[in-house]
Amino acid sequence: MRRRPVDLPDVPVVVVSHRGPVSFRREADGTRSVRRGAGGLVTALAGLGRHLPDAVWVCAAATEEDATVAREHGGRALTVAFDPHPRVVGPSDDAEDTLQVRLVEVDPERHADFYGVVANPLLWFVQHNLFGLATAPSFTERDHDAFRKGYAAVNEQFADAVATEVEDREGRALVLVHDYHFYLVPELVRRRCPNAVITHFVHIPWPGPSAWRILPREMRGRLLTGLLGNDVVAFHTEGFARNFLLCAQEILGLPVDLAAMTVDAGDRRIEVKHYPISIDVAAFRALAATPAVEDHVRQLREDLAGSGCRLVVRVDRTDPSKNIVRGFRAFGLMLEQHPELVGQVTFLALLQPSRLDIPEYTDYLARIGAEVALVNARHARSGHRPIDLRLEDNLPLAVASYRLADVLVVNALADGMNLVAKEAVVVSERDLVLALSENTGAHQELGAFAVTLHPFDVQQQADAMYAALTMPSARRAEQCRAAARVVEENDVGKWLRAQLADVAPLLAADPSR
Amino acid sequence: MRRRPVDLPDVPVVVVSHRGPVSFRREADGTRSVRRGAGGLVTALAGLGRHLPDAVWVCAAATEEDATVAREHGGRALTVAFDPHPRVVGPSDDAEDTLQVRLVEVDPERHADFYGVVANPLLWFVQHNLFGLATAPSFTERDHDAFRKGYAAVNEQFADAVATEVEDREGRALVLVHDYHFYLVPELVRRRCPNAVITHFVHIPWPGPSAWRILPREMRGRLLTGLLGNDVVAFHTEGFARNFLLCAQEILGLPVDLAAMTVDAGDRRIEVKHYPISIDVAAFRALAATPAVEDHVRQLREDLAGSGCRLVVRVDRTDPSKNIVRGFRAFGLMLEQHPELVGQVTFLALLQPSRLDIPEYTDYLARIGAEVALVNARHARSGHRPIDLRLEDNLPLAVASYRLADVLVVNALADGMNLVAKEAVVVSERDLVLALSENTGAHQELGAFAVTLHPFDVQQQADAMYAALTMPSARRAEQCRAAARVVEENDVGKWLRAQLADVAPLLAADPSR
Repeated sequence: MRRRPVDLPDVPVVVVSHRGPVSFRREADGTRSVRRGAGGLVTALAGLGRHLPDAVWVCAAATEEDATVAREHGGRALTVAFDPHPRVVGPSDDAEDTLQVRLVEVDPERHADFYGVVANPLLWFVQHNLFGLATAPSFTERDHDAFRKGYAAVNEQFADAVATEVEDREGRALVLVHDYHFYLVPELVRRRCPNAVITHFVHIPWPGPSAWRILPREMRGRLLTGLLGNDVVAFHTEGFARNFLLCAQEILGLPVDLAAMTVDAGDRRIEVKHYPISIDVAAFRALAATPAVEDHVRQLREDLAGSGCRLVVRVDRTDPSKNIVRGFRAFGLMLEQHPELVGQVTFLALLQPSRLDIPEYTDYLARIGAEVALVNARHARSGHRPIDLRLEDNLPLAVASYRLADVLVVNALADGMNLVAKEAVVVSERDLVLALSENTGAHQELGAFAVTLHPFDVQQQADAMYAALTMPSARRAEQCRAAARVVEENDVGKWLRAQLADVAPLLAADPSR
Repeated sequence: MRRRPVDLPDVPVVVVSHRGPVSFRREADGTRSVRRGAGGLVTALAGLGRHLPDAVWVCAAATEEDATVAREHGGRALTVAFDPHPRVVGPSDDAEDTLQVRLVEVDPERHADFYGVVANPLLWFVQHNLFGLATAPSFTERDHDAFRKGYAAVNEQFADAVATEVEDREGRALVLVHDYHFYLVPELVRRRCPNAVITHFVHIPWPGPSAWRILPREMRGRLLTGLLGNDVVAFHTEGFARNFLLCAQEILGLPVDLAAMTVDAGDRRIEVKHYPISIDVAAFRALAATPAVEDHVRQLREDLAGSGCRLVVRVDRTDPSKNIVRGFRAFGLMLEQHPELVGQVTFLALLQPSRLDIPEYTDYLARIGAEVALVNARHARSGHRPIDLRLEDNLPLAVASYRLADVLVVNALADGMNLVAKEAVVVSERDLVLALSENTGAHQELGAFAVTLHPFDVQQQADAMYAALTMPSARRAEQCRAAARVVEENDVGKWLRAQLADVAPLLAADPSR
């Protein structure tokens, strides 16, 4: 018997997300390798799937080898075992903890429109409020085409895959759709599978109606209508959930109940919920103790011992929503206003270059470099560089920096949750002070134990960084421990259990489901 | 006996706005001249004031001569008669239709911070959603200072002037505060005059909470708290009113009732209302028949007869919120996609240069010029210039162009109301087609009789302009007449009467007031 995470009716589960739980690669020696997908969401949901008797994960074939594997299986799901390492198993194999994975192969041109034009940057920019509306966006036929032939077409392809899986299970299943790539999927699946229970989790911010009005009428209408195919639409915060209801009310003219948090579409009532996502605390602490992380800790200790100085850390993708430039500007301002700190504090910025095919992102990366040069030129001392900028994706180094940081800076303009903040506080060895933007979902849980950053106020950020660096050690310890306790109590398991508990009555309500 | 516009209790009225109903000037010959203030608001409220037994208008001394006049009167109100022409009258003068005007002299440096740093561009940009948040704004001590020593200080000065006028009337008065310059005034007046009935009309868009979170905590908190000193806060549309309540709920944590449209602050309940402003139809039609306008009509007819072509018109300030560049781009796209129209249609753009001390505005003006050059270079024919750009403030020419326009383009990104649309339809001689942005307040009243423009969708705008230019004449006539009827029925008198009718019970409710 497999353990079930909550008292869930015995129903098949179909998970849908762009990235999947495994990915295949053709190695230099010609062999095929398979790797576990990264990220908190994948970990959490893979855990769920593996504890259920019948679960299938529908995701994009992300590599050429994924596409080859998909074709070898005729586009149908394959069975993957995870322990001790991920591998494809056959039907006769009696491996435990298996998960079915259906890799959807998408035509590259179509995928480029879907992913590189619509999902990013368009939806990402709308949802993170990143457009300077005086000049952008400016929709032309090219964008409308990208929506219809890219985004909508890929959504149709995924909906078809999902509906096929549900139909294979006699139309009775719990479908868990994830994120901004698949807003049209729920309604399409609903049409073919009226007895499915469908939920959607949106992992990025959901802004109010005026932000959605940036999108052409057809796009915003289809996205909202697509999401109303769900039984439950869920977000990280109550504010995002309320904004979704306001969009249904103002853009579609539907009746909403802002107290009960529901919207009526036709004869169906959709519930709008919020569940703050989190991390797997035990797994993350285990990662923090691996040799790769220990090596970086040793190296960092040596580097810092040389200058005897304190450590400010940030770990982000080079995304304009992360507000990296203002963060450096604030750090420079702090050094200017508190010259006694010059040479005494290093800002280690681990920034993973991101989406460099998009001009806004290369421009932003250039601005980052420019600001770092200015601050370092003004405040360098012999043998000490105020900002240590590392443009790489290095998870062990990131985790090592969490362990040793005195201050962690998260000053995002907008962020659905921000897991960096949650990761750092549970592995800190120096009672780090969290300097946390009020515009992150995480601020709702951790704001009381953090120094709050106002993302647009450079002076306020400079003052807050100074306050963080000069906070008495007893207070640091108290706050860091309190923040860690919050994360320990609200870990990713709780996030998942809360959603499943809420959906259980829906599954039980209609026995025909 | 003076006529009273509604059954209003016999109570003194204090109007507060940045621009006033009159302005003084020292002429070249050394004499002092006095002019009527321009604009619909001033006309409407001056009409109100002149029909009430005791009304005083508190406004900024806008010219040096205004300041001299203010000083001559020891900072107190002066009495102005309007018929047949505006003039200052003495207490013994028995002129009818007088209004008291209190000119508040503001220190120029303080005014520069108040007006040129905070009100424009900061509040204007926040409320019209114009910031590209990846890079701007970036608050420093300079901005905080401008708020405290400029905006707040000027608001205190105005509140002091208002409270003095109310106290001179034994604390019993109806105070009508106007627009984004004076968000702090109501609470300051409330403190000194608890028995006053205070209302505030916000003439520009009120965005949702996330837009206000761009402002530092102190600023947004003080602005909202200032407005909660009112008994009634009013906007042009229900959406703006709802956004205000959401701000009170999410930013201040106050209990709001989104059905009753109220918010509770302390022991007071504030009503949040919406009244779409309009124009004085009769006065505007009279203006359209003046010789100055007739001259321009004749000239325009000659110009157009030469090319025999149709006329698209826009009249705006060169403000990024007006979306001028995308409008020209759409016009160029239409010519590209419908080459048969090249040489057959002229886009007359009367653009009043605006706020050129602000870099964003000079940049935007440059972009306008650049786009016009591109379109004109691509589509010019011998003797015909596709876009006729005139960078001047010329009201008679604007009104003449309304009379002759085939299409009026209003494609604003965001606009509280937009009175150009209302003016044009009541004087059109060619059954103009209104091409109207869905993001204007006016679209709620006139959208049903207009071609709707999506401000960010250049292709859609090009299609809509083409549809407008090729609309069958019977349909044009029908729609234009229907739009004119809406404006005739909902003119500025109705706007004012509705507000006064709603406030009457408040004035009657407490006899101690």
